[in-house]
Amino acid sequence: MDYEKIFLQITDEINTAGNPGQVASYIPELSRVDANRFGIHLTTLKGRSYCYGDANEKFSIQSIAKVLALTLAFNLEDNKLWERVGVEPSGTSFNSLLQLEYEKGIPRNPLINAGALVICDVLVSRLKNPRQELIDFIRDLAGDQSIDYCPRVARSEKITGYKNAALINLIKSYGNIHNDIDTVFNLYCDLCSIEMTCQELSQAFLFLAAGGINPLNNKRVISVSKSKRTNAIMQLCGFYDEAGEFSFEVGLPGKSGVGGGIVALLPGQYSIAVWSPRLNAKGNSYRGMKVLELFTTKTEASIF
Amino acid sequence: MDYEKIFLQITDEINTAGNPGQVASYIPELSRVDANRFGIHLTTLKGRSYCYGDANEKFSIQSIAKVLALTLAFNLEDNKLWERVGVEPSGTSFNSLLQLEYEKGIPRNPLINAGALVICDVLVSRLKNPRQELIDFIRDLAGDQSIDYCPRVARSEKITGYKNAALINLIKSYGNIHNDIDTVFNLYCDLCSIEMTCQELSQAFLFLAAGGINPLNNKRVISVSKSKRTNAIMQLCGFYDEAGEFSFEVGLPGKSGVGGGIVALLPGQYSIAVWSPRLNAKGNSYRGMKVLELFTTKTEASIF
Amino acid sequence: MDYEKIFLQITDEINTAGNPGQVASYIPELSRVDANRFGIHLTTLKGRSYCYGDANEKFSIQSIAKVLALTLAFNLEDNKLWERVGVEPSGTSFNSLLQLEYEKGIPRNPLINAGALVICDVLVSRLKNPRQELIDFIRDLAGDQSIDYCPRVARSEKITGYKNAALINLIKSYGNIHNDIDTVFNLYCDLCSIEMTCQELSQAFLFLAAGGINPLNNKRVISVSKSKRTNAIMQLCGFYDEAGEFSFEVGLPGKSGVGGGIVALLPGQYSIAVWSPRLNAKGNSYRGMKVLELFTTKTEASIF
Amino acid sequence: MDYEKIFLQITDEINTAGNPGQVASYIPELSRVDANRFGIHLTTLKGRSYCYGDANEKFSIQSIAKVLALTLAFNLEDNKLWERVGVEPSGTSFNSLLQLEYEKGIPRNPLINAGALVICDVLVSRLKNPRQELIDFIRDLAGDQSIDYCPRVARSEKITGYKNAALINLIKSYGNIHNDIDTVFNLYCDLCSIEMTCQELSQAFLFLAAGGINPLNNKRVISVSKSKRTNAIMQLCGFYDEAGEFSFEVGLPGKSGVGGGIVALLPGQYSIAVWSPRLNAKGNSYRGMKVLELFTTKTEASIF
Repeated sequence: MDYEKIFLQITDEINTAGNPGQVASYIPELSRVDANRFGIHLTTLKGRSYCYGDANEKFSIQSIAKVLALTLAFNLEDNKLWERVGVEPSGTSFNSLLQLEYEKGIPRNPLINAGALVICDVLVSRLKNPRQELIDFIRDLAGDQSIDYCPRVARSEKITGYKNAALINLIKSYGNIHNDIDTVFNLYCDLCSIEMTCQELSQAFLFLAAGGINPLNNKRVISVSKSKRTNAIMQLCGFYDEAGEFSFEVGLPGKSGVGGGIVALLPGQYSIAVWSPRLNAKGNSYRGMKVLELFTTKTEASIF
Repeated sequence: MDYEKIFLQITDEINTAGNPGQVASYIPELSRVDANRFGIHLTTLKGRSYCYGDANEKFSIQSIAKVLALTLAFNLEDNKLWERVGVEPSGTSFNSLLQLEYEKGIPRNPLINAGALVICDVLVSRLKNPRQELIDFIRDLAGDQSIDYCPRVARSEKITGYKNAALINLIKSYGNIHNDIDTVFNLYCDLCSIEMTCQELSQAFLFLAAGGINPLNNKRVISVSKSKRTNAIMQLCGFYDEAGEFSFEVGLPGKSGVGGGIVALLPGQYSIAVWSPRLNAKGNSYRGMKVLELFTTKTEASIF
Repeated sequence: MDYEKIFLQITDEINTAGNPGQVASYIPELSRVDANRFGIHLTTLKGRSYCYGDANEKFSIQSIAKVLALTLAFNLEDNKLWERVGVEPSGTSFNSLLQLEYEKGIPRNPLINAGALVICDVLVSRLKNPRQELIDFIRDLAGDQSIDYCPRVARSEKITGYKNAALINLIKSYGNIHNDIDTVFNLYCDLCSIEMTCQELSQAFLFLAAGGINPLNNKRVISVSKSKRTNAIMQLCGFYDEAGEFSFEVGLPGKSGVGGGIVALLPGQYSIAVWSPRLNAKGNSYRGMKVLELFTTKTEASIF
Repeated sequence: MDYEKIFLQITDEINTAGNPGQVASYIPELSRVDANRFGIHLTTLKGRSYCYGDANEKFSIQSIAKVLALTLAFNLEDNKLWERVGVEPSGTSFNSLLQLEYEKGIPRNPLINAGALVICDVLVSRLKNPRQELIDFIRDLAGDQSIDYCPRVARSEKITGYKNAALINLIKSYGNIHNDIDTVFNLYCDLCSIEMTCQELSQAFLFLAAGGINPLNNKRVISVSKSKRTNAIMQLCGFYDEAGEFSFEVGLPGKSGVGGGIVALLPGQYSIAVWSPRLNAKGNSYRGMKVLELFTTKTEASIF
């Protein structure tokens, strides 16, 4: 399929429409980004690549990184992981303390902030040097050793992240954080600060379109079953309180971040990453959602 | 693929395991069913059928019928439908009034009770004889004119359905029920009372595996886009508060009913219906979930 | 104390201040009232009366009547009543379904709508002709046989009261309504439709300032203990989500209604009724609250 | 009135009844107390004292101290205080994060943990040496310079208080904590660690029965109006989720602590403190509630 041509059609349509979203401003570092950046990159299982715009510019992938931390933790814990975190959509805004309280410190899923904090706790328990091993894992997935944390973003998260600090303390009060709060919180803030390009993102997620094998080196990252399950979690929980909307309009498993990135994939076919910093009211990239909707409409292919 | 053989393997495994669930008892009619009934039926797009056990016995499909009512309403209203009902998972138990109150009478999705009541209101507004036209629509889908409402079950629902009566009154208080409460409530109770066999169910849902075309007569039931979107809604909202679990373990769009039925489908391939009346704590068929988990594991095919 | 003079001072202050509230409009009958009506009436235990303005004009006392229905039911059931309804403030807006769901159909207190519906159910169970006996009870309290239901208001409540219909159905689903829903709901709507003057209201509530004895005829209405407990319930639950504010500013047990009436009392001293139809955002009479705040400030007497 | 004789009657009744409560165990320091301790002390405005049992033994007054911190903050801020904290009962368990989230970081009242944290923040903002000035204020009220913080209890609170740490972070995320989290949290933990005897407690609260004047030295502590308002807040919010029950059974403004202490007062008459460490399910002293219920029944005097 001529993905390049479809990209051009889509960007034509996108450019004539407005872009009414707002750049995330909850930490100063994020608000400094150029709101009009726009990049898109698709990588197929057969190794072909298609890109458009600022596809090779680094940006803060934020919550997208939670999927990769989950992959690592899932490998380490197998199904014991699910005693400490659920696989259900949250049904409320992404950092709500409400359900955590009713459900006794078991986060609804590993992709909301509460769940990702538990995932970080698992990594702290299981890895000797979690910060280094996590970034090495992601570098290998993307085949790019330049990928790194952004210390300024991580510091901003630490200094201003009172809601996340509330979450981790609440989870700890129910006994579901096993390590020192500061250690786990630091790893979480680092995780959210990772910077990647659309090209690197689409490459890094390709193993989930390939049944768990990294096509770059044919090494198995996770089992077929875990790959399928990770996609299922993205499908139901990857877009804050808009997972239904994304599923309805786009029909692919994916994950968004407040930096304006979205990654999605069609099992057996491709992985695609889009970046546009303006967010809609639910915290997902306004243009990113539109682009992917047009993309699955024009390619007439989705998981449904 | 030799589905017959896989059925035998699965039923072997199932029979040696326990079946600890409970038959639904909230209306007397449902509790009278033989708890050990077990049927399974798969229909492929190519017209082949595979079945096992009590696949030709009628049972109360209950909430499964909500998908078919949605299909009809979606056709009548197009995207205007989504001004009155959402497409997001509810994140709480299936008949909760909580979110309805916070979200001003707009049900989270058309497959929870609140949403199905709004769908029934649409049918009452748009159809001359909604009760008749709805059952005719389902008979055509399944290619079987014997499918019908069960008056005893419908009456039980009407007499004992105080929670649903609370729901419809609450929605009406926000102006999102346009017709007389009794008329809409009666249609809803009728809808939940429909009886079908596994064979009929898998046939009736096959159009959603076929991009909206009924393979029985090659007539288009709904557009490709609506078919895809209906599957997306089932994927995210089809299993009460266990949609994540079903997605995680099975990986197919589907819908369950408290009568013990589950229907699921793999787009482009098949539709499958299972029936086993004992329910797990979340209200989904205990064995039905297990069977479908084993089925997608053994066939190594799911949407993810 | 020269209450007459204090009334004049208060009304002077009130008249120079604004009256920004809104007349209740949820039923048409209530919205037709003259928004500028203002009456006040105080009756002392020693039998003296003080009034100002439209103190002898009938108005819809609405929720104020719930206290009198509670008195009757408390007498009939003694402490068994509290197995079916609590005595705690609700902490949320007055007709919320949320807590009712979490607390399994036991309303938080008898003065919210849910609780008053249970009280009406008690009256239907215990009285031969509850509608007649209830109004007779109130007529005797006030010493005025002209007090009556308003059929137009009651009909409006019945036709438009979808939220209350949702409430009673929800409570019934938990088994805490023992009689036919329509019968109980009709009594509830009648109860809310009672019309009284400020003079009649202050007279009718005087027994709660007198340890349970009606000073008009020296007959005991309820025991000392029940009188004290009814005052405690008014203190904590009498002003929707503004009980704290009323307690904080006024410091008397009392009850408000959306018709703009408020009745309050100082045990051992007096009962006072105010009427001004404009309501604040929480549904309590804007001027009524102000008047009573000024009154307890100027008289330097409250329960605290 | 012969309060001594009434104490004897009450303790007779109490001793023949059981004492099924549990000593608080959420911090180790509290669980070490002798569960059978029992003390009671009443001080009248006329300067007479009546006591029984362990009335001169120090115990951890815990949340009771929140009333005294409120008094100090109310004096410093006047009515500006109420822009940062409400005066309404919470309607849920005492440390719930739910309402705080819905109400954007404004705690419902100053006597729940969230509200007391805001009060501590006020003290940190306004006082040069809040820890010292707070304890001096309390020493003066009780006329006893030996009253002090318990460093072991305070440390326990700091180390194990994850829920409170979650609360303060959540409030900070809404901008309603103005100072450094650790500083405010330390003061809060100190506040909860104060130890007093029943005798000291009843003396320290006597100013609230005396219109704001400390009868020990005839110095005004707070204005008449603030005294009345503080009592109103205790009445509606002083017993976690059991304020209604206490009001209903006892009919006095008061405050309890998880150390098993309760203080209550009858304006114009007396202040009374009870101590019995076993708590009921709502976290209030089991015997303390009973004693006060019997006390107001036998003395036939309450605010209602």
